[in-house]
Amino acid sequence: MFKERLYGVIIAGGRGTRFWPLSRKARPKHLLNFLGDTSLLRQTAERVLPLTTTGRLFVVTAESHAGEVREVLSDIPPQNILVEPVGKNTAPAIALAAAHIIDKDPNGIMVVLPSDHIIAPRDKFLADLEEGARLADARRVLAIFGIRPTRPETGFGYIEVGQKLDGRAYGVASFKEKPNLKKAKDYLGTGRYLWNSGMFIFRADVYVEKMRRHLPNLFTAWERYAKGNKGPEDLNEYYAVAEAVSIDHGIMEKLAGETAIIAAGFNWSDIGSWDATDELWTADEKENRARGCDIVAIAAEGNTVVSKKLVALLGVENLIIVETDDAILITKKEKAQEIKNLVEEMERRGLHSYL
Amino acid sequence: MFKERLYGVIIAGGRGTRFWPLSRKARPKHLLNFLGDTSLLRQTAERVLPLTTTGRLFVVTAESHAGEVREVLSDIPPQNILVEPVGKNTAPAIALAAAHIIDKDPNGIMVVLPSDHIIAPRDKFLADLEEGARLADARRVLAIFGIRPTRPETGFGYIEVGQKLDGRAYGVASFKEKPNLKKAKDYLGTGRYLWNSGMFIFRADVYVEKMRRHLPNLFTAWERYAKGNKGPEDLNEYYAVAEAVSIDHGIMEKLAGETAIIAAGFNWSDIGSWDATDELWTADEKENRARGCDIVAIAAEGNTVVSKKLVALLGVENLIIVETDDAILITKKEKAQEIKNLVEEMERRGLHSYL
Repeated sequence: MFKERLYGVIIAGGRGTRFWPLSRKARPKHLLNFLGDTSLLRQTAERVLPLTTTGRLFVVTAESHAGEVREVLSDIPPQNILVEPVGKNTAPAIALAAAHIIDKDPNGIMVVLPSDHIIAPRDKFLADLEEGARLADARRVLAIFGIRPTRPETGFGYIEVGQKLDGRAYGVASFKEKPNLKKAKDYLGTGRYLWNSGMFIFRADVYVEKMRRHLPNLFTAWERYAKGNKGPEDLNEYYAVAEAVSIDHGIMEKLAGETAIIAAGFNWSDIGSWDATDELWTADEKENRARGCDIVAIAAEGNTVVSKKLVALLGVENLIIVETDDAILITKKEKAQEIKNLVEEMERRGLHSYL
Repeated sequence: MFKERLYGVIIAGGRGTRFWPLSRKARPKHLLNFLGDTSLLRQTAERVLPLTTTGRLFVVTAESHAGEVREVLSDIPPQNILVEPVGKNTAPAIALAAAHIIDKDPNGIMVVLPSDHIIAPRDKFLADLEEGARLADARRVLAIFGIRPTRPETGFGYIEVGQKLDGRAYGVASFKEKPNLKKAKDYLGTGRYLWNSGMFIFRADVYVEKMRRHLPNLFTAWERYAKGNKGPEDLNEYYAVAEAVSIDHGIMEKLAGETAIIAAGFNWSDIGSWDATDELWTADEKENRARGCDIVAIAAEGNTVVSKKLVALLGVENLIIVETDDAILITKKEKAQEIKNLVEEMERRGLHSYL
């Protein structure tokens, strides 16, 4: 059966910088709860499960978050939570999952998903995944999901769409790095570019084959791991040798005619910073948003508040206010992308307990 | 001895509106700690004590704050803490203290002080008090302290200075209500007006005499109390009958040639709202002020923060940020005077636990 060959692979890395003070080193974004009652990680798992099973769902995560990941995904077999001894970007992480999937099914198909995106509606997402999986299986390509741009975003990679394959699947004409604003506007204007969502679908064996060709050193290290006992020491050895490289730079961009892009039929947000929560949270008539608290606002508009206390706003506009047990952030929305500078400043000042 | 006739009377009324969320109904401004380690009330008591004794220091306060006042002033004899069953403004409160002072010394001189001002340096304050007391005793006038205006403040009453008496003491030409901005600028321009500080000095018997003449109903009620046992029921009866009126409107403004104003030689602030704390608290090089917490600020200037948590500021200016156990206030400094509107809004919404 085709469906029984489908494996979910959630890449649960990420740092806790952009959503400080809610996110921390030990609590990255995917452990936060932006919508509903569960974390982004939990939602990611539940979103893909109808197409697979808990036994066929893998998670690759870091040692510092492994405990919380196991807790959040307590229904996933513990051996499916793959813990990287050190972060080496996505290419080695995906290869790690591929080794375990191939053990279970040499014809396994991997659906690779970042752990911290918001996607809806689920039925469209699942339909796209299935279509992508069939395409990747039949054409033996590395397929990537592309998102139709809605703004000249400079924080994403772009993919130039090539010739049509099937349905909403196309060849890839070119990969583009994160552009400056001018380029981003150009891309948006042509209508020929999609955002790189970081979601991939491919046969595990096809991924390994491309890795062998384009990342031969990684492949050699991987092969030793894949053919061994896959014990903790083997894992350490693999990660000691593995080069740190993304699937995008290390493999996808080097391919020609062996990739496909699927224009997503679902809504997608990577909620990259606090200001992106405006898309998610309901506003009052003055565009103030409160999560976890009551607000009392006079002559105050466009503010977003996360707190457990009553928050009173008087004469302030377009602020982001986030309170945790030990810290309070207050920033202009337009500066939300620069929160990493605050975190760096705290690091410099030795305020480690807040990182 | 002249000094043994000096009595301090601290009027510790006030509501908890302007310094919300730190101040509350049950914790008015005088119980807050703006400078140093003690409350404004405690500082007021200690400031005047060198001129009197704990036994000659009286406090008039409300039932809702009496417990905390007794705690803060545990060295004052309990019978000197006079608890009003209901607030009736300053004229009845001062009369109440006068009754107790006359019992102790028919020639007693009262120094009437609001409980929530900041005054420095103390030696100049004490020198002025003594000069004022001698003047009030010798001339049998009601003396008031005037503060040289430094800005066209619309929140204070103004007093037009008359002919010179002794030293920095003058007759009063006229009392002026809180002016609009245009009038305040005029007053400031002439140099002939001082702010009404709400600090008074007079012989207790002279005050009673003026009350008899200008507030005869209050005098009648007072006389019954003063000549009685001064028990709780007598107090209730006095306050049930007493008209609510300020010393300014009820007595001072009706006098002619029986008042004096002393131009204060000390620095004074009534810290009327959060923005006034800028005068008190040390700023960093970006004019950010933090009380009780560390701040990390990037591209942020002129903010004042009161919290027990780390507060991170990014791209925000001239904000007041105050965090308590159950609430957070964020306002523009220029709106600090309007915090009462927030408190009213909370009252309307039934958020009683925050009031």
